[in-house]
Amino acid sequence: MSSEFGKKLRVSVFGESHGPGIGVVVNGFPAGESVDPSELNRFLARRAPGNSSLTTARKEADLPEFLSGIRENVLTGSPFAAIIRNTNQRFGDYKGFEDTPRPSHADYTAAVKWNGAADMRGGGHFSGRLTAPICIAGGIALQILARRGIFVGAHLSNVGGIADDPFPPHPTPELLRSIAEKEFPVIDSAKGSTMQEVIRNAAADGDSVGAAIECAAIGTPAGLGDPMFDGVESLLSAALFGVPGVKGVSFGSGFDCVNMRGSEHNDPFVIENGTVQTASNHSGGIQGGITNGMPIVFQIAMKPTASIAKKQQTVSLSGMSETEIAIHGRHDPCIAIRAVPVVEAVTALCILDLTLGK
Amino acid sequence: MSSEFGKKLRVSVFGESHGPGIGVVVNGFPAGESVDPSELNRFLARRAPGNSSLTTARKEADLPEFLSGIRENVLTGSPFAAIIRNTNQRFGDYKGFEDTPRPSHADYTAAVKWNGAADMRGGGHFSGRLTAPICIAGGIALQILARRGIFVGAHLSNVGGIADDPFPPHPTPELLRSIAEKEFPVIDSAKGSTMQEVIRNAAADGDSVGAAIECAAIGTPAGLGDPMFDGVESLLSAALFGVPGVKGVSFGSGFDCVNMRGSEHNDPFVIENGTVQTASNHSGGIQGGITNGMPIVFQIAMKPTASIAKKQQTVSLSGMSETEIAIHGRHDPCIAIRAVPVVEAVTALCILDLTLGK
Amino acid sequence: MSSEFGKKLRVSVFGESHGPGIGVVVNGFPAGESVDPSELNRFLARRAPGNSSLTTARKEADLPEFLSGIRENVLTGSPFAAIIRNTNQRFGDYKGFEDTPRPSHADYTAAVKWNGAADMRGGGHFSGRLTAPICIAGGIALQILARRGIFVGAHLSNVGGIADDPFPPHPTPELLRSIAEKEFPVIDSAKGSTMQEVIRNAAADGDSVGAAIECAAIGTPAGLGDPMFDGVESLLSAALFGVPGVKGVSFGSGFDCVNMRGSEHNDPFVIENGTVQTASNHSGGIQGGITNGMPIVFQIAMKPTASIAKKQQTVSLSGMSETEIAIHGRHDPCIAIRAVPVVEAVTALCILDLTLGK
Amino acid sequence: MSSEFGKKLRVSVFGESHGPGIGVVVNGFPAGESVDPSELNRFLARRAPGNSSLTTARKEADLPEFLSGIRENVLTGSPFAAIIRNTNQRFGDYKGFEDTPRPSHADYTAAVKWNGAADMRGGGHFSGRLTAPICIAGGIALQILARRGIFVGAHLSNVGGIADDPFPPHPTPELLRSIAEKEFPVIDSAKGSTMQEVIRNAAADGDSVGAAIECAAIGTPAGLGDPMFDGVESLLSAALFGVPGVKGVSFGSGFDCVNMRGSEHNDPFVIENGTVQTASNHSGGIQGGITNGMPIVFQIAMKPTASIAKKQQTVSLSGMSETEIAIHGRHDPCIAIRAVPVVEAVTALCILDLTLGK
Repeated sequence: MSSEFGKKLRVSVFGESHGPGIGVVVNGFPAGESVDPSELNRFLARRAPGNSSLTTARKEADLPEFLSGIRENVLTGSPFAAIIRNTNQRFGDYKGFEDTPRPSHADYTAAVKWNGAADMRGGGHFSGRLTAPICIAGGIALQILARRGIFVGAHLSNVGGIADDPFPPHPTPELLRSIAEKEFPVIDSAKGSTMQEVIRNAAADGDSVGAAIECAAIGTPAGLGDPMFDGVESLLSAALFGVPGVKGVSFGSGFDCVNMRGSEHNDPFVIENGTVQTASNHSGGIQGGITNGMPIVFQIAMKPTASIAKKQQTVSLSGMSETEIAIHGRHDPCIAIRAVPVVEAVTALCILDLTLGK
Repeated sequence: MSSEFGKKLRVSVFGESHGPGIGVVVNGFPAGESVDPSELNRFLARRAPGNSSLTTARKEADLPEFLSGIRENVLTGSPFAAIIRNTNQRFGDYKGFEDTPRPSHADYTAAVKWNGAADMRGGGHFSGRLTAPICIAGGIALQILARRGIFVGAHLSNVGGIADDPFPPHPTPELLRSIAEKEFPVIDSAKGSTMQEVIRNAAADGDSVGAAIECAAIGTPAGLGDPMFDGVESLLSAALFGVPGVKGVSFGSGFDCVNMRGSEHNDPFVIENGTVQTASNHSGGIQGGITNGMPIVFQIAMKPTASIAKKQQTVSLSGMSETEIAIHGRHDPCIAIRAVPVVEAVTALCILDLTLGK
Repeated sequence: MSSEFGKKLRVSVFGESHGPGIGVVVNGFPAGESVDPSELNRFLARRAPGNSSLTTARKEADLPEFLSGIRENVLTGSPFAAIIRNTNQRFGDYKGFEDTPRPSHADYTAAVKWNGAADMRGGGHFSGRLTAPICIAGGIALQILARRGIFVGAHLSNVGGIADDPFPPHPTPELLRSIAEKEFPVIDSAKGSTMQEVIRNAAADGDSVGAAIECAAIGTPAGLGDPMFDGVESLLSAALFGVPGVKGVSFGSGFDCVNMRGSEHNDPFVIENGTVQTASNHSGGIQGGITNGMPIVFQIAMKPTASIAKKQQTVSLSGMSETEIAIHGRHDPCIAIRAVPVVEAVTALCILDLTLGK
Repeated sequence: MSSEFGKKLRVSVFGESHGPGIGVVVNGFPAGESVDPSELNRFLARRAPGNSSLTTARKEADLPEFLSGIRENVLTGSPFAAIIRNTNQRFGDYKGFEDTPRPSHADYTAAVKWNGAADMRGGGHFSGRLTAPICIAGGIALQILARRGIFVGAHLSNVGGIADDPFPPHPTPELLRSIAEKEFPVIDSAKGSTMQEVIRNAAADGDSVGAAIECAAIGTPAGLGDPMFDGVESLLSAALFGVPGVKGVSFGSGFDCVNMRGSEHNDPFVIENGTVQTASNHSGGIQGGITNGMPIVFQIAMKPTASIAKKQQTVSLSGMSETEIAIHGRHDPCIAIRAVPVVEAVTALCILDLTLGK
């Protein structure tokens, strides 16, 4: 039905990779909040391709044009809309993929769903390019949240089996900012160098690598979220699985809980600075779906880039016969790198949504 | 806002552990479908406590009473409603927990959210008991899906570090049924015995253990789900995180993707029996948020039972001082065992929702 | 899909006229608000049948049983659920109507929609009886609003062509209360006597009459509602058309605007008691979908009771042939009388929804 | 929260009258349907200003640019987006209205709601100009419906007290088309001439007039809509009240029911051409919220244009003092004329939504 998410803050993303343009409409941004365009552009630049040897060589200006909901850099209260023109298209790169679907892309599923009418050039509406409009909306949400003392940041926590340091129990705004300013978003730069080595090796083999991202939101008040199916975990995971390539979402200790006993996993309550806190944070800041005031911490599994240069087996849909495919063109060998700000953007939008009307 | 989920099939759960009753309302069940009450009761019995030495000794009859939407065992099309009376209450067990919140329960977050008005006796609305009405609705969904050739089943894939065999690439309805009929729902009963040993040891120590559940849905057609934020992963994860204790959801290879290259993770297309299939299923049957016709496969992380007999540190909210707590009463040392049918129920409801109107 | 309405306050109604029971689930009632059960029962009594010679002689106790979300008469924050048992059933009254649909009832449309599975005894889910659970939820909303200085009241503004006095520009809480206390809810009791005469005449002829209801909400702050499709008129009308028998909704001068010029219809702004008000209220308190702080005023068209004793032409669905029908049983000759509190209930729920989180 | 409507077909409108641009995003258009751009432009021209002496002299090209969801005039299945640039702006016309709100405009309510941040130049997001993107989406819906044998058409049924002929019981596609082709959309052109006289007189006085619109949808199958709050009347009215100026919506006999008895208002069932029909259509094609296969017929009350040249009383919000205002600029003396295709557009979108997945 819809490329939309949110309750009080509704985000709607549109566009196809090789169509005229992509964009976002947001209903519910609080009126009167200002937007710093240069800060927004710096945030968008973190997602943009062509920043390093590890991301696709495609160069997209991707400067958003604001169409409504903002006047002289102040949000007006009515729907916010922004678009980005598609300018740097290479139609030839993807010809034929509508008949011979690329493995683990959405080519086949979209072909079935939309009876062959889908525009799948460059991945169409399923392209990672659609994360640019998410970042426009999310970049604005990050600015609004920061003014309220809420900060969101993420890092590559694991690439190809190489683990970064985890977030400390209480990540500071400074730590989050310092990671965001790095070309390669990790806590421990030495680990980051090893990760980059792994990525370069895969790229040299015409291959790609999977990764995990850890994200934290700090400064969030206790009491956000509703019970059961409108809990914070439900809202965040539903939005995060909308980011292309995400195959897992876990909170706090996540899947490590299989090796833990209750006496280890439970977070004891303590009084610190006159407030109720927990001594550990295995819950990831969420109990019963509702925030407890501790940092919200979660992990994302990002699959390896599906577009690889290596030959792969596929089928011809018209001939119902098996064949081979080799994907040329320019592709990130590790999509997780550029997904880090996208995860921050989605998280900021969800948390802003949760705080509206409180 | 709401203990509800679903799009065309809307499920609304209500009740508090120690209030007069709990129940479920479902809008959108297809009219004319029959319900087999004894099959439904057998399904509900899998979730019910008191079935084995490993689950709480509380005995709940939990027989649902149908109030509307069904006539002579046939769904009428109008809202379906069913209730369960709360009969076996022990108020004393939980006295005082509203001031000294139990670690990693929702006592504290609910107290903050609802300013002390929450009825948290026995966990209140956050109690695992609220999964009973989910199972009523889900048990009916399972019956409807089965008539359409769609089957959902789950097993304990890891308890305390002991891993069960994973599902084969193409789980059969017979396999799913055979697991469901076991008292301890695993594929490899020997592994299951070891798991039970682990659980009994934890229980003997007044402690609990975490676990993982693997779930599969077979027979689902290709083309279910919508792009981006209404993808199958988004819908399923949002609903699954509504189940008390779930802290992670991952599809296909999930977090193992960090150790995989694209050439390993990508699922090559093949022609089998004249249909398009994939040779492997690292995508878990979902690409671009949309089903590809392969089994939908995912994993759930279930935290250790938060209620443990061991002494724990907590605070007095009235005194803003630290104190200790010991939780008496009857609690499952591993909530994942009884969560297996709950995961099946939620999954069945989501998949039935996705298939409506196709 | 759903017998539900609301955004932050979600109301879900279930039940069938002759099934085991009917009820309502409300997600989003503010925690900590108290409920006065006897005041609620007085409100429910206004809707109950059998109060006068002008309403059906069926006697329903209709005392609600609270299942959840309320403890010692205080709302807990978790979903509120209440049910009413169906006790006074006369199955024979409606036999055969599933084959020979009653004109202007939902018998035929439900039969088509649900392929014959619908339980249409006594109107099934479409029965006016389903307004009882709406009144339970709405009666609670009225109590909450009253504590915030917001009052909702309605009266029969036209029955069979006999018009009551319209509301004055600023209806007082006392006026609304005095109407609510009348057995026949009008402003001018003399007009009310004439109306009752009209109704009795119709009843004597085995017939029924249509009516209009005028409703006002006072004390509502300016700024409620969102632009375009989430305006107050959109939310109210969508909910009000859910009340059986409603065929028109208009705000302020409504359809009289066809006889007005802009200079007459526009509401001039004035300063009164240091606040911005309008000298007239042709807008019904709503401009651009958003409240302006003046009373919200609207009209409802209620069709004549479809169940009449007179012989009517219908068809046999099984035989696809024309036939005649005469509806026996006990029916209100003017459903609008008992619909007055229902309109108040729906309005209160919508306005409470709009004020949540402000 | 949102300038959006729809369930399976979701329409989101954005833009401000004097901002860079306006537009629409539609999620859920059926993939593979073709769009005839010249037919769409002819439809948009009916809403465009400057067509006659009775509409504003402003000339807007208003040609939409498609950004996504359509390729070579075929809908692709992914979100459809179209924008219109604002080119013909006259900023001076509206200066100062943010302090001295225009009576019966949204100037005041938006100022309160958005704390002065609203961009109200030219009415901002509340401008009638925002109906242009609705017509883009609705024009496409009309084309899709026509291929399925469903036609929607409307006419001015009353202007300043002058009534057009009502629709016959079974309006034909030819009748609807012939009205649409008229410069002044009425059934009886002689009545139309009188209406135009009334409008010209009001304009000469610096005033405006109110009107009613009657709309019909033919060819709709029985069984559309859901019970209670998701009935066809609820969905249509919620969307229609989103059109600026709409103050009333009624179905079938609407408010005339106050003068009718049940024996007159009830629609007797008959067999015609082997199908179940009703001999009259006082229900407007909807019983119990669900279509019965007869034409859907409803009326809209459109208030007189709020912008009039005559001096009016208002207040200075900054000074909290009373003052006068005269609105210059170019305004339609009867907004209902150009609203006729807008009502058709909204209706087509709602009906297409209802038919999806059937």
